[in-house]
Amino acid sequence: MIKSFYPPMRTLMGPGPSDVHPRVLAAMARPTIGHLDPAFVGMMDEIKQLLQYALRTDNPLTMPVSAPGSAGMEACFVNLVEPGDKIIVCQNGVFGGRMKENVERFGGIALMVEDAWGDAVSVEKVRAVMEQHDDIKALAFVHAETSTGVRSDAQALCRLARDYGCLTIVDAVTSLGGIELEVDAWGIDALYSGTQKCLSAPPGISPVTFSERALDKVSKRNTRIPSWFLDKTLVMGYWGGGQKRAYHHTAPVNALYGLHEALVMLQEEGIENAWKRHETHHEALRNGLEAMGLQMSVAADIRLPQLNSVAIPEGIDDAKARGQMLENYGLEIGAGLGALAGKVWRVGLMGTSCTRRHVMLCLDALENTLLEQGAAIHAGRAAAAAAAVYATQNK
Amino acid sequence: MIKSFYPPMRTLMGPGPSDVHPRVLAAMARPTIGHLDPAFVGMMDEIKQLLQYALRTDNPLTMPVSAPGSAGMEACFVNLVEPGDKIIVCQNGVFGGRMKENVERFGGIALMVEDAWGDAVSVEKVRAVMEQHDDIKALAFVHAETSTGVRSDAQALCRLARDYGCLTIVDAVTSLGGIELEVDAWGIDALYSGTQKCLSAPPGISPVTFSERALDKVSKRNTRIPSWFLDKTLVMGYWGGGQKRAYHHTAPVNALYGLHEALVMLQEEGIENAWKRHETHHEALRNGLEAMGLQMSVAADIRLPQLNSVAIPEGIDDAKARGQMLENYGLEIGAGLGALAGKVWRVGLMGTSCTRRHVMLCLDALENTLLEQGAAIHAGRAAAAAAAVYATQNK
Repeated sequence: MIKSFYPPMRTLMGPGPSDVHPRVLAAMARPTIGHLDPAFVGMMDEIKQLLQYALRTDNPLTMPVSAPGSAGMEACFVNLVEPGDKIIVCQNGVFGGRMKENVERFGGIALMVEDAWGDAVSVEKVRAVMEQHDDIKALAFVHAETSTGVRSDAQALCRLARDYGCLTIVDAVTSLGGIELEVDAWGIDALYSGTQKCLSAPPGISPVTFSERALDKVSKRNTRIPSWFLDKTLVMGYWGGGQKRAYHHTAPVNALYGLHEALVMLQEEGIENAWKRHETHHEALRNGLEAMGLQMSVAADIRLPQLNSVAIPEGIDDAKARGQMLENYGLEIGAGLGALAGKVWRVGLMGTSCTRRHVMLCLDALENTLLEQGAAIHAGRAAAAAAAVYATQNK
Repeated sequence: MIKSFYPPMRTLMGPGPSDVHPRVLAAMARPTIGHLDPAFVGMMDEIKQLLQYALRTDNPLTMPVSAPGSAGMEACFVNLVEPGDKIIVCQNGVFGGRMKENVERFGGIALMVEDAWGDAVSVEKVRAVMEQHDDIKALAFVHAETSTGVRSDAQALCRLARDYGCLTIVDAVTSLGGIELEVDAWGIDALYSGTQKCLSAPPGISPVTFSERALDKVSKRNTRIPSWFLDKTLVMGYWGGGQKRAYHHTAPVNALYGLHEALVMLQEEGIENAWKRHETHHEALRNGLEAMGLQMSVAADIRLPQLNSVAIPEGIDDAKARGQMLENYGLEIGAGLGALAGKVWRVGLMGTSCTRRHVMLCLDALENTLLEQGAAIHAGRAAAAAAAVYATQNK
């Protein structure tokens, strides 16, 4: 007989999920009600408003897809790409590659703009491709590459796309709530995100927003959308607003309770304060890591505060070290992905996992684990270096 | 400022979600851990075993899709249907129509076998279509039609499909846990279900299973699967078993805690006992309703115990009556869908909502609400009639 499952106590400082606040956990345990209950429909409207607030948009099509970020990605591409459409896809990590898969599976032609893992998307390379073709339908890129810890210049890329008359499809899975993100001001046309990163809501939901221009493209399709579940023209019958909601699918009721609570907490803090908090704790962590003698593997001007790629020192057994931190500290940090496997660790400071407590625990765990493996690092300096940053910030 | 959301107290006796047990709600509130954490991976293996138990199958590809039942449906069709494939789709309610949508969106040809809403799928009509074509790839049908409350003969339909050498795709959203369902013994090839019906787990997850024959069809595809998120060949890298799990998407961690707990409870009760429980309470409800003078709208031999379609008496305002039951009793029952809108109510007795307490509450609420609207029903007989059934059953 299989017994009830009780998860071990963990501190989540990997690439997501981040720690979920007790308020959000408690919200998920509230009694399930019907997905068409008037009280539930009222909560859906609030989620929509809160997402518009967090995404800085007035787009009426702003809603949580009832599935993880990779389904949110698919929701954008399956609605916006038709067979033969040329889409510029920028790849500078894992998720650009997944975008390419999406474009091609829906019959589109992916024009790849590749940059090294650890670099930002090159605006100039994108411009060059736009110059070569006059029928590009959309530019797709990742704002915050979770696989490398790199921020690309979403504002400049969106401006470029507007100049050349094409739509933008933006992966904001790791950026939402952690760094500046301005859907309307930057002119983003389609965006998907995740709940388990800087929002610190439970994983499994993907906030999505579409601009009027994006909806216009959907309404003018010549071919049918090859998905029923993700067809935005249908989903909006349920999420669209007004008193009358058409049944489309059964919403993940309790997960949405959790998302609602996490968004209420974000609103209480203020989105700009949340951005500042991520910056502050990132500075403290970086200063501590560098004082220890570790190197940040991403250049300072394109570093994500919420996802810190740190070079693994020579001679360290990656998996063993992460295993020891999990065992001894209950601390999860992320492994490198793809080309960066074994070369970097990814230390998340996302949402509820972005506090001084997290920074200090992580520095202590890293220092002691590396010392145990005989790494040549500076012992006893990291905590003071981090504290020095907090002193400056009056934290 | 938007405040925390506290759902009203409800008793869920509609077409799903059903009441979620406090054990399952509590499980969802346990701390989130990483989707690649060894402890989480162990829990995933248990979920798989528990689903195999509930579905009566040894299929290695048995897993919960990280999205609602409609995505589980899409997971079956998007993997198994290629452009030009002829698929027999049986329609005797809403969900057969959604299957047709799926087949067509993936380029297949849906050969429709239509039966009236409220009738079972006709095995003879299906046989006739099989006789007319020699290149049918699959037979798709709904085992338990949630829109009408009808059970079709899944065993006979699967036998027929085997005789004609085609695969079966079965919608078991409302059947799993409520009535007999035998994936291996009946030879079902692809099946999707839901968590929010007779499993009484939180909505948002869809258990799916594929037979070896179904996997063989997937591996021999000539065209690419037009979905990345639902591509079973990729998902199984994460859910497939063994120590090494490839990251595919971030699993809905807390929702899976809830599903695990609900499945543990099902295992504790025993699946056959669960089927019997649904039958018993259905009999009590039916006897009570008939004593009141109401009519079951589905013939006795094809009635689903877990979803009871009841004809709305003449002169009753459907929406007003449901509103009154929600207001006065906190009781949710389901409206009719499509052709049955305004004509029937759908009373669910699913999972945790399938108890004597639920039956008695529903009878009382219906009786008093109908009397208030002046319906010509027999007052004061229903409770005794239901109790008489329990007396017979020694309950």
